[in-house]
Amino acid sequence: MRMFKRFLATALCSAVVVSGFSHVQKVDAGPPSHSNAKVENVIFMIPDGYSTSYATNYRIYKGEDTVLDSMLVGMMKTNSADNWVTDSAAAGTAMATGVKTNNGMISVTPDGEELNTILEAASDAGKATGLVATSTITHATPAVFGSHVESRGSEADIALQLIDDVDVLLGGGKANFLPRSKGGNQAERNLLEEAEASGYHFVETRDELVALDGKEEKVLGLFADGGMAPELDRNETEEPSLAEMTKVAIDTLSNEKKGFFLMVEGSQIDWAGHAHDAAWAMKDTEAFEEAVEEALEFAKKDRKTLVVVAGDHDTGGMTVGGYDEYRSNVEMLRDVTATGSYMASQLHEDRSNVTEVLRTYANIELTASEVERIQTAPSNRVHFVINTIISERAYVGWSTTAHSGVDVPLYAYGPSADLFNGLLDNTDLPKRMAEAMKIDFVQ
Amino acid sequence: MRMFKRFLATALCSAVVVSGFSHVQKVDAGPPSHSNAKVENVIFMIPDGYSTSYATNYRIYKGEDTVLDSMLVGMMKTNSADNWVTDSAAAGTAMATGVKTNNGMISVTPDGEELNTILEAASDAGKATGLVATSTITHATPAVFGSHVESRGSEADIALQLIDDVDVLLGGGKANFLPRSKGGNQAERNLLEEAEASGYHFVETRDELVALDGKEEKVLGLFADGGMAPELDRNETEEPSLAEMTKVAIDTLSNEKKGFFLMVEGSQIDWAGHAHDAAWAMKDTEAFEEAVEEALEFAKKDRKTLVVVAGDHDTGGMTVGGYDEYRSNVEMLRDVTATGSYMASQLHEDRSNVTEVLRTYANIELTASEVERIQTAPSNRVHFVINTIISERAYVGWSTTAHSGVDVPLYAYGPSADLFNGLLDNTDLPKRMAEAMKIDFVQ
Repeated sequence: MRMFKRFLATALCSAVVVSGFSHVQKVDAGPPSHSNAKVENVIFMIPDGYSTSYATNYRIYKGEDTVLDSMLVGMMKTNSADNWVTDSAAAGTAMATGVKTNNGMISVTPDGEELNTILEAASDAGKATGLVATSTITHATPAVFGSHVESRGSEADIALQLIDDVDVLLGGGKANFLPRSKGGNQAERNLLEEAEASGYHFVETRDELVALDGKEEKVLGLFADGGMAPELDRNETEEPSLAEMTKVAIDTLSNEKKGFFLMVEGSQIDWAGHAHDAAWAMKDTEAFEEAVEEALEFAKKDRKTLVVVAGDHDTGGMTVGGYDEYRSNVEMLRDVTATGSYMASQLHEDRSNVTEVLRTYANIELTASEVERIQTAPSNRVHFVINTIISERAYVGWSTTAHSGVDVPLYAYGPSADLFNGLLDNTDLPKRMAEAMKIDFVQ
Repeated sequence: MRMFKRFLATALCSAVVVSGFSHVQKVDAGPPSHSNAKVENVIFMIPDGYSTSYATNYRIYKGEDTVLDSMLVGMMKTNSADNWVTDSAAAGTAMATGVKTNNGMISVTPDGEELNTILEAASDAGKATGLVATSTITHATPAVFGSHVESRGSEADIALQLIDDVDVLLGGGKANFLPRSKGGNQAERNLLEEAEASGYHFVETRDELVALDGKEEKVLGLFADGGMAPELDRNETEEPSLAEMTKVAIDTLSNEKKGFFLMVEGSQIDWAGHAHDAAWAMKDTEAFEEAVEEALEFAKKDRKTLVVVAGDHDTGGMTVGGYDEYRSNVEMLRDVTATGSYMASQLHEDRSNVTEVLRTYANIELTASEVERIQTAPSNRVHFVINTIISERAYVGWSTTAHSGVDVPLYAYGPSADLFNGLLDNTDLPKRMAEAMKIDFVQ
């Protein structure tokens, strides 16, 4: 189906684009939008799990308006084909292909047929392409842009497809590119060797990454066997920051005269939300904002780059305040210097040092009942109880350990930013990016 | 202070307006915005407690995009002067005066000095003015537009000030206009008689309201002693709907050649949120949407009317989904035909008929454990337990019985709608309305 669709693309494009965008608000959003300027490059940045409550809490955490605040243009619906509450696979598929699928599926229809992605369309138009994430680079959100599988768990299959299609790949997940006798999701082949043989420059530490001279045509950077470290716990000499990866990706991709498409994911905001780890969520949002600043710095100079930012869904049902009081104390999270999981790992086997650990890493003095809650928690729940206590003290509310289905805020900067004004569906995004880049993109 | 400020208004207006709006995004939002058309009338509609989760859940409840969905232009910060989580008094003060105050205060500064309101500025410019609400008309949100008191509880003082300043007043709260020997918040005077003596046409039933011929200059309609009935429980022959009140207000106010300012509040979305009564929240949102449709119908013909819609804050930390599952079942709320409080009132003293009551009014078959939860609840919590069970079945999550501090969506239609694009502060709204109407408005 995909080859057939690509065959149809040229023939049908103008008609489809005209009918598909008939309700686009054509507005002049002032100087930052350069509405008539040509879009050569798109940087699509996805803070996974980021909804309005994250935006408001992060503004309080930061103590001033955020970079994203100045870029707000609208909001986005997030539901999948089969559920009002999407997962990242279906949400990403909608945002990459313009078509809704079922939860769990990676850029295929609910019937399993492959869907063109905006990254592939950009590649077909001669543009360079890249994916950056702090999860495994084969995780659902990056995967949807350059692979097609029926189950998001097939990360070895995803790895195989990514190194076929994408010029710059930076993130975690080295294990998915290496052969393993254990089978399962692991590749049977050594994809790292194959990637190098096919022209990728491979790096696996921060120092190797920042030492690149930006002239490489293809870069594969895998900085952890699985997901990279949470920003709170990151060893800065071993793993690069999201901003550093973003900068290298832009430097590399911007060598292509025909432009580039880059997706950058702040992957772990979502993981923090699942764990109700408010400090992790704030710190990874800060790391994401620094990556947005890298993108904006390039876009402001370049003036032919459109930056679009949207979370794929909310995670955790986070709220600003909670616990039946009119109060927020998010500022206290600035003094939390480790994730709940890291704190749990620092407890003695009998958890006798819990007061000291929380004092050291969260700057709080636990009450007797809080000590008891942590000491009596099942071992696989200790981090969650720590996170819950910190959330209670910060007045960050949560209603679920899963995702929620609320519309999320939508941000854009650069030429054609005005195409993203108002309430959009997640399927609108890649279509409007294609319209902005004036490239063929049909299913 | 207020007299002095009014004295200064004319002298300082142009300078203040220029500096105050230096960051306004001047954009052409297409035909519905008529950006260059003159704004004679502003209809400011406030769904109290309405955040993005209400918008998303209501879209699911309705089964299609809502009227508000098509009007989304931005989002709004809600914090008060002294709290990241505002109450309706401080939120309303910001939205009416452009100045933040402390929670609980009605259009005075934290130091107690009176603040000009956008309604008063419109009145000073010769426009007719009106307030419509389903709470008492002296409740915080309507109160902030036409009165100035240090405590929102002073409803008799508020009543006295409202009938001095506002041409059309429609809502509940008749008791606050009548003398009571009990003292407290009740007026010492008979304000109904005083209002009629000063030219108000007084009505107190739906039939009296809709029988008005629209030629009255001043109308006082008070349809309940306290708050009006929730839309789910409303007796349609006794109390008017919010849409009916809105229509009468517009009909009456639009007689004024110099234009009008009207504030319409969907008051009880907030009350439903506090009670975690998801069906009440949805039904009162539907009633609010019908009122918005009345406003739009007028604005579309008139073409000189700006309609602005924004909740003042979130209530309840509502979420779309929750309870650790990827699921929403909001559609079931369509079959709920009474509030939790009404259902609680239908229980026998021993609550033996709980299964029948929930079957009748919520279309659900309670499990044995749900029956036990309702039967063993303290008597003042029975309605809350009923609401909680219905929320669990609808997968509507909640994180607090108070408000939350999340940014809320901002909607606009008509000429100068583009002034409300992007992320605004709640204090920006009245300033931009004044700019749109080209009237003096300074503090």
